[in-house]
Amino acid sequence: MKTNLKALFLNCTLKKSPVTSNTEALISKAVSLFKELGVESKVIRIVDHQVAFGVTSDEGNGDEWPTILAEIKQSDILILGSPIWLGDKSSVCKMVIERIDASTSEQDENTGQYPLYNKIGGVLVTGNEDGAKKVCAEVLFSLNHSGCTIPPNAMAYWVGEAGPGPSYLDAEGDKHLFTNKNLRFLISNTVYFAKLIKEQPITTNLHKLTQEAEQESKG
Amino acid sequence: MKTNLKALFLNCTLKKSPVTSNTEALISKAVSLFKELGVESKVIRIVDHQVAFGVTSDEGNGDEWPTILAEIKQSDILILGSPIWLGDKSSVCKMVIERIDASTSEQDENTGQYPLYNKIGGVLVTGNEDGAKKVCAEVLFSLNHSGCTIPPNAMAYWVGEAGPGPSYLDAEGDKHLFTNKNLRFLISNTVYFAKLIKEQPITTNLHKLTQEAEQESKG
Amino acid sequence: MKTNLKALFLNCTLKKSPVTSNTEALISKAVSLFKELGVESKVIRIVDHQVAFGVTSDEGNGDEWPTILAEIKQSDILILGSPIWLGDKSSVCKMVIERIDASTSEQDENTGQYPLYNKIGGVLVTGNEDGAKKVCAEVLFSLNHSGCTIPPNAMAYWVGEAGPGPSYLDAEGDKHLFTNKNLRFLISNTVYFAKLIKEQPITTNLHKLTQEAEQESKG
Amino acid sequence: MKTNLKALFLNCTLKKSPVTSNTEALISKAVSLFKELGVESKVIRIVDHQVAFGVTSDEGNGDEWPTILAEIKQSDILILGSPIWLGDKSSVCKMVIERIDASTSEQDENTGQYPLYNKIGGVLVTGNEDGAKKVCAEVLFSLNHSGCTIPPNAMAYWVGEAGPGPSYLDAEGDKHLFTNKNLRFLISNTVYFAKLIKEQPITTNLHKLTQEAEQESKG
Repeated sequence: MKTNLKALFLNCTLKKSPVTSNTEALISKAVSLFKELGVESKVIRIVDHQVAFGVTSDEGNGDEWPTILAEIKQSDILILGSPIWLGDKSSVCKMVIERIDASTSEQDENTGQYPLYNKIGGVLVTGNEDGAKKVCAEVLFSLNHSGCTIPPNAMAYWVGEAGPGPSYLDAEGDKHLFTNKNLRFLISNTVYFAKLIKEQPITTNLHKLTQEAEQESKG
Repeated sequence: MKTNLKALFLNCTLKKSPVTSNTEALISKAVSLFKELGVESKVIRIVDHQVAFGVTSDEGNGDEWPTILAEIKQSDILILGSPIWLGDKSSVCKMVIERIDASTSEQDENTGQYPLYNKIGGVLVTGNEDGAKKVCAEVLFSLNHSGCTIPPNAMAYWVGEAGPGPSYLDAEGDKHLFTNKNLRFLISNTVYFAKLIKEQPITTNLHKLTQEAEQESKG
Repeated sequence: MKTNLKALFLNCTLKKSPVTSNTEALISKAVSLFKELGVESKVIRIVDHQVAFGVTSDEGNGDEWPTILAEIKQSDILILGSPIWLGDKSSVCKMVIERIDASTSEQDENTGQYPLYNKIGGVLVTGNEDGAKKVCAEVLFSLNHSGCTIPPNAMAYWVGEAGPGPSYLDAEGDKHLFTNKNLRFLISNTVYFAKLIKEQPITTNLHKLTQEAEQESKG
Repeated sequence: MKTNLKALFLNCTLKKSPVTSNTEALISKAVSLFKELGVESKVIRIVDHQVAFGVTSDEGNGDEWPTILAEIKQSDILILGSPIWLGDKSSVCKMVIERIDASTSEQDENTGQYPLYNKIGGVLVTGNEDGAKKVCAEVLFSLNHSGCTIPPNAMAYWVGEAGPGPSYLDAEGDKHLFTNKNLRFLISNTVYFAKLIKEQPITTNLHKLTQEAEQESKG
C-alpha cells in the first residue's frame, strides 16, 4: 500500500542530539507503523534548531520556526511528542504550541480557514511517571484550537509507576502492551481521517460564518 | 436542507429546572443553528434526572443513566455543556464523563470499536469569569478518549472579565461576537464531519490492532 | 506526645461503604501517622452521606453538607482524598470542592477571613494509573483558594504504570517507598504548620485590604 | 516598618525588554505594596537572560540560571509572574518551573530539606482573556512541590472577557477591584508567613522520615 500522505513529528524533548530521547524512541515506532501503511514521516527535534520564544510566525534574528512551519503546512498528519516534567508537558512543547497558535492569523483568502485545517492531530508522551493524560489533553486541545481534526484515540503514552524509576527505554516500555495498542489505534485512525479529508476537504467557510455572527452580535 | 443527523446536548449545570441555566441559553442557540442545517437536537439536563455516581453503565437502584446512554448511542453529534465553578468544569460534568467512559467496555463484536466511535464531539461552556479553555480541553479529551472525533474549533464559550460579575444572560453574552462566531464554527464543523462519517464509517479494527500489539509486547 | 490538633479527611471515592476504597486505605495510613504525632483524625466518606450538588452551604431537602461543613470548621488540618478516573479527580471530589468554595461567603465579622483561614490543607490520591499530579494540583489550588495554607510537599499519591492494572491495595502500594515517604512529609509538615498557626493565627484583615483596594480602583 | 525580608519576582513574559510587559505592570504594583510593608523586592525578566532548557541547576555553555537560582536562595518570598497564551502559562514559565524543580536534588545535609523550604510562594498572572486560574494552580503546585509554603489566597490575576481584547494596561486593569483586592491579600499573607517561618524555620527532617519510610516499604 502506498499513499501520498505525509506525517510530521515534532519531538519536544529538552535534550539536544545526540543525547538519548525516550520520546524519540516512541516516535520511531510510530514512524515504522506509518511506513507499513504507506505514510512517509519526518521527525524534527525542536531543540536541535534555533526556535525563538514568541507568538508570531517569524521572530527574526535567525529564528528557524519559519522552516518548521513550512514543514507543518506540507504535512497531512501532525504529531507532537513530549516528555513529562513535573507532571506537565515540556517547556519546549509549550513553545511549539505558542508558535503553532500564531499560524491561525494566516487565514485562507476565500474560506478563512487556518493553515492547520484539513490536518489530523495526535500526541505521543513518555515519562518515567505520572502526567501523561494531562499532557495529551493539553496538546490535543491546542492542536484542535489551531485547526486540526482529532480522530478517536489520538494519543499513546508510556509512564512507569509513582515516583522515580526507569524511563521508557530502560523499562522496556517498547514491549508494554497498553502503549503499543494505543499507538496502533492512533496510527490507524490518523491515517483513516487523513485520507478522508484529503479526498473531501472541509468546506466550512469561516469568513461567511463570521459575517453571520457579526450581524447577530452587538457592536 | 434536511439531514438524518441527530445532535444530543447534555447540560451539566448544577441547577435543576426550572431555575435559569446560562449554559442552557447557549445550548439553545446551538439548537437553532443545527435546525437551520437540518439537524435535529435533543437536550438533556442531567440534574433533572437521577444519575448515579459510578463507573459502570448501570449502577442500578433507579439509576437513569442507561436511558441517557441510549440517547447518546442514537446521536451523531454529542455536545457537553458545562458551567464553570472555581475555574473548572462542574461536578455533574465530571460525573457524566465518568459514566461515558464506562461505555468503552462495550466493544463492537467485529471491530472492537466503542459505542462513541463514529460520533462527533464538541463542548459549550459558560461562566461569569475565567476557566473556559480548561473546561473545553478536559471535556474534549474525555470525549476523544471515549471514541469521539473532534473536528476543528469544536468549542464555544462565554466568560466575563476577572472576578465576580454578571453571567451569560445578564451580560448579554448572546450578543458577544467571539462566542457567536465560535459557536457557528462548532456547528458547521460538527455537521460536516458527522455527514462524512455517516457516509464512510471508521474502518479501524481495534481487535486486530490489539492482537498485533500483543504479538509485539512482552507477556 | 499529645496535641489538641484535629485532622479531617474527606474521602471522595465513588463507591459507597462497605465496598473497598483504595483511597481509604491510604487515608488509614495517614490516620495512624497523625496518631503517632498526637493528632486526632476523623474520616468522612462523602458518598455514604446525602450531599447535594450546589454552590451554597445548605441546599436543603435533607442535604447533609451542613454537618460536614461543621466538621471542617472544627478541624485544623483538612485533607481531601480522591481516586483518579480518566486522569482526573472524581466527580465527588469536585462536588466537595464546589461546596467548600461556597464557605468563602461566610466571612469573619472583623477580619473578613473565610472559615478555612488558619487551616492547613493537603491531598491524598490513589489510582491504578496516571493522573495523580493533576488531581493534587487542582485539589490544593481549590483548598488554597478557599483559605487553606499549603505546607511544603502537601501531597502523597500512588499510581501504577500506564494502562489497566491492579489498584493500590492489590499492587501492595502500601509498601511503595515513594508514596510512604511523601505521606510522611505531608503528615509532618501539616502538623508543623497547624501548630504554628494555632499559636499565631493569621492576622491579615481582608476587610481593610478590600477597602484599600476600593480606593485605588475605578468605580 | 522595616523588615529584613526579600521578595523575588521572576517575570516569565515571552517579550524581551524594552517591549512592554503587562505582567511586569502587575508585578510593579506588588513591588510597591511590598515596599510599604518593609519588604525589598527584586524583579528578573527571564528572557532578558540566557536561560537554557534543562532539568539540572547548571546546563553550562553560558547558562545564566545559576545566578538566578542564587537569587532564589537568598529570597524569602518567591513569586512567578506569567502571561497567558492559549489558556496556559507561558513556555518561559514552564522552563523556569523545570529549572526550579531541579533544585530539589540539593538537599540540606542534616534535614534533607530542599533549597525552597522555608520560602513562601505566590503567583501573578495577566492575559487578555481566560486561563488565569489554570496558570495559578499549576504554578502554585510546582512551587509547593519544590518546597514552598503557599499561604491563603496566594494568587492575583487579571483577564478580560472571552476572546481578543485589550491587555491589562490598555484595559486599565490596574484599576480593577478584584485584581487589586487579591493582590493585597497575596502581599499581606506572603509577608505574614515569611516572618513566621523566618522566626520558626520548618523542623521537618526529610532524611529521618525517608528512613522510616524505607523500613516500612518493600525492598
